[in-house]
Amino acid sequence: MSAEVEAALKRHAGAVDALISQIVPPAGIPHLSEPVRHHLATGGKRIRPALCLLTCESLGGDPAKAMNFAVAVELLHNMFLLHDDIEDGDTVRRDAPTVWVKYGIPNAINAGDWLLGRTYACAAASPLPDAARLELLEILTETYETTCRGQALDINSRGSDPYAVEDYIEMARLKTGRYLVLGMVGGAVAAGCGRTVKDALWELGENMGPAFQIQDDVIDLTLGKGRGGVLGSDIREGKASILYAFALSKAAGEERERLISIMRRAREETSDDDVRWTIDLYGRTGALDFASGFADNLVRQAFETIERLPVDNKEMFRQIARYMIGRKK
Amino acid sequence: MSAEVEAALKRHAGAVDALISQIVPPAGIPHLSEPVRHHLATGGKRIRPALCLLTCESLGGDPAKAMNFAVAVELLHNMFLLHDDIEDGDTVRRDAPTVWVKYGIPNAINAGDWLLGRTYACAAASPLPDAARLELLEILTETYETTCRGQALDINSRGSDPYAVEDYIEMARLKTGRYLVLGMVGGAVAAGCGRTVKDALWELGENMGPAFQIQDDVIDLTLGKGRGGVLGSDIREGKASILYAFALSKAAGEERERLISIMRRAREETSDDDVRWTIDLYGRTGALDFASGFADNLVRQAFETIERLPVDNKEMFRQIARYMIGRKK
Repeated sequence: MSAEVEAALKRHAGAVDALISQIVPPAGIPHLSEPVRHHLATGGKRIRPALCLLTCESLGGDPAKAMNFAVAVELLHNMFLLHDDIEDGDTVRRDAPTVWVKYGIPNAINAGDWLLGRTYACAAASPLPDAARLELLEILTETYETTCRGQALDINSRGSDPYAVEDYIEMARLKTGRYLVLGMVGGAVAAGCGRTVKDALWELGENMGPAFQIQDDVIDLTLGKGRGGVLGSDIREGKASILYAFALSKAAGEERERLISIMRRAREETSDDDVRWTIDLYGRTGALDFASGFADNLVRQAFETIERLPVDNKEMFRQIARYMIGRKK
Repeated sequence: MSAEVEAALKRHAGAVDALISQIVPPAGIPHLSEPVRHHLATGGKRIRPALCLLTCESLGGDPAKAMNFAVAVELLHNMFLLHDDIEDGDTVRRDAPTVWVKYGIPNAINAGDWLLGRTYACAAASPLPDAARLELLEILTETYETTCRGQALDINSRGSDPYAVEDYIEMARLKTGRYLVLGMVGGAVAAGCGRTVKDALWELGENMGPAFQIQDDVIDLTLGKGRGGVLGSDIREGKASILYAFALSKAAGEERERLISIMRRAREETSDDDVRWTIDLYGRTGALDFASGFADNLVRQAFETIERLPVDNKEMFRQIARYMIGRKK
C-alpha cells in the first residue's frame, strides 16, 4: 500500500469512526441501528473516506471541512453493498451473514433506505457555505443515480446473448466511473477547487472505475476472490464479465452454447468442471489477455489525466491511482 | 372532495404530469424507466403535488417555484410504495401486478433506489435561491429518514406482544407525521414563509398523520379497503393496528391468546372465521369506539393548530385538512 495513503488512513481513522458512530448510533433506533451496525462491522478499512480527505489536503484544503462528505461516501458505499447483497442473493460478507439473511429482506431493504437518508444528512451537515453544500448534494445524487443505472444493467446481464464488450464497458462506466472518484471530487469541492480540477477527477474515474472492475474480473480467474482463493466465483454467479463478453464474440457452435448455458445455470448447479472449462475457454479465446490489455490501457489513460491535473502535487494523485489499481495485485 | 382541492388538482395536473415525464422519462433508461413507469401508472390522482402547490399559493407564493418539490413529494411517495410492496409481500396494486412481481425483487429494489435519486434531483432543481433549495433537501431527508424509522417499527410489529397503544402512536407519528405534510411545508418554503408557519404545518402533520392512519385502520373493519369492500385485510396481514393494541390491553386468557395467534398466522392461513371473530372482539372490547374517538381527538387538535396558523386564509387549510380526513369517509 502506498505510504501516503496508509498514513492518511491512520491519521484520520479515529475521526472517521467517531463521525460514523455519531451519524449511525450503535443503538437506540429500533430495527435500524442494529442491522446497519452489523453491516458496517463487515465493512473493511474505510479507504474511501481516507481518499476523500487526502485529496482535499493535497488540493490545499482543510480536511476537517471534507470530513462529513468523506463519511457520507463510506455510508453510500455500504448502503449499496447492503442492497446488492439482497439483489445478488449473497449470504455471507466477510465471514458474517449478510443483513437480509440475519434480519430478513423487509428489514434489509428498509435499513438500506434509511442508511441512504443518513448519507444525505451527513453530507448536508458539512461545515461549508450553502453553494458548496448544494454542490456536494448534487454530486452525491448524480453519482447515486448513475450507479443505480449501472446496477440495473448488471442485474439484467446474467447470461445475456448477445452481449458485447461495449455493453460491459457501458455497465462498468455507469456503475463505477463516478462512484470510485465521488469522494475525491467531494474533497476537491471542500477545498474550493474550480471546474478544471473536478472535471479531471471525474475523467479519472471514467477510466479508473472500469479498469478497477475489469481487474476484479481477471483476479477472480487468476488469484480468486473471497475466502480461500477459490477461482471462478463470477462464473458460478453467472456474472457477465468482460471475459464473458469477449469469449462470446470468439467462440462458436457448441462451445458458444455451452458457455451461455453455464452462465445461465443456477449457482448451486454450476459444477467445478463447468468452472474449469470456462476458465480454459477464456484462456484459449484470448479473453484473459484481452481483458488485461484493456485494463492496462484504461490505467494508462488515467495516468495521462493525472498529468493534465492543474495541481502541483501530481505525485499524490499518482499514488492514489496506483493504490486503487494495485491493492489487489 | 373539497372544491378548492379539486380545482387545484385540475389546474395543475398537466404541468405536474409533464414534469414527472421529464424527470422519469417513459423510456430510454434500461430496466428502470419501464418498472418505474409501470408503478407510477398505478399511482392515483397526484393529490400530494396539488396540496403542495395549493399551500404555496395560499401562502402568497408562486406555485411555479414549488412545482419541482410538488413532483419530488409524489416521487418519494411512489418510491416508498414500491419498496413497501416488496416488504409487505403485496402482489397487486390497483389491479396491476406490483413491480417486484412483474420484474423481480432485485429490479424492484434497484428501481426504488433510483426513484429516490430522481426525487432528490427533482427537488434540487427547484427554481429557488441556494438557501431555500438546501432547506428543501433537508426537509426531504429528514422526512424520508423519519418515515423509514416508522416503517421499521411497522414491519416488526406484526403480532407483537406486548404492544401498547403508545407503541402504535409512536409508529404512526414516525411513519406518517412528517410524510403527510412534507409537500405543504415545501410549499411554504417556496413561498418564503418563516419558521412559525412551517412549524405549525409540521404540528398539523403530527396530528393529521396518525389520525389518517387510524382512520385507515377503522375503515378496514367497517367499509373495507381495496377491491370489493372486503373487511379485515389488516387482520389477514397481521398488521398491528391501534385496534389490536387496544384489544390486547382489554382481552384476557384464551381470547387474548387467540387474538395474538390470529395476528401471527400467515395471510393464507387466516380464515374468514378468524376475521369475523377478531372484528367482533374489537367491537366487544370497545377498541373500535376507542380508535374512532382517538382519531377525532387528533383531528380536533389539528383544527386548533390551523386556527393558530399566522395566515389570513385559514379556510383553505381547513379545507385541506377536511379533504385529507374526509377522502375515505
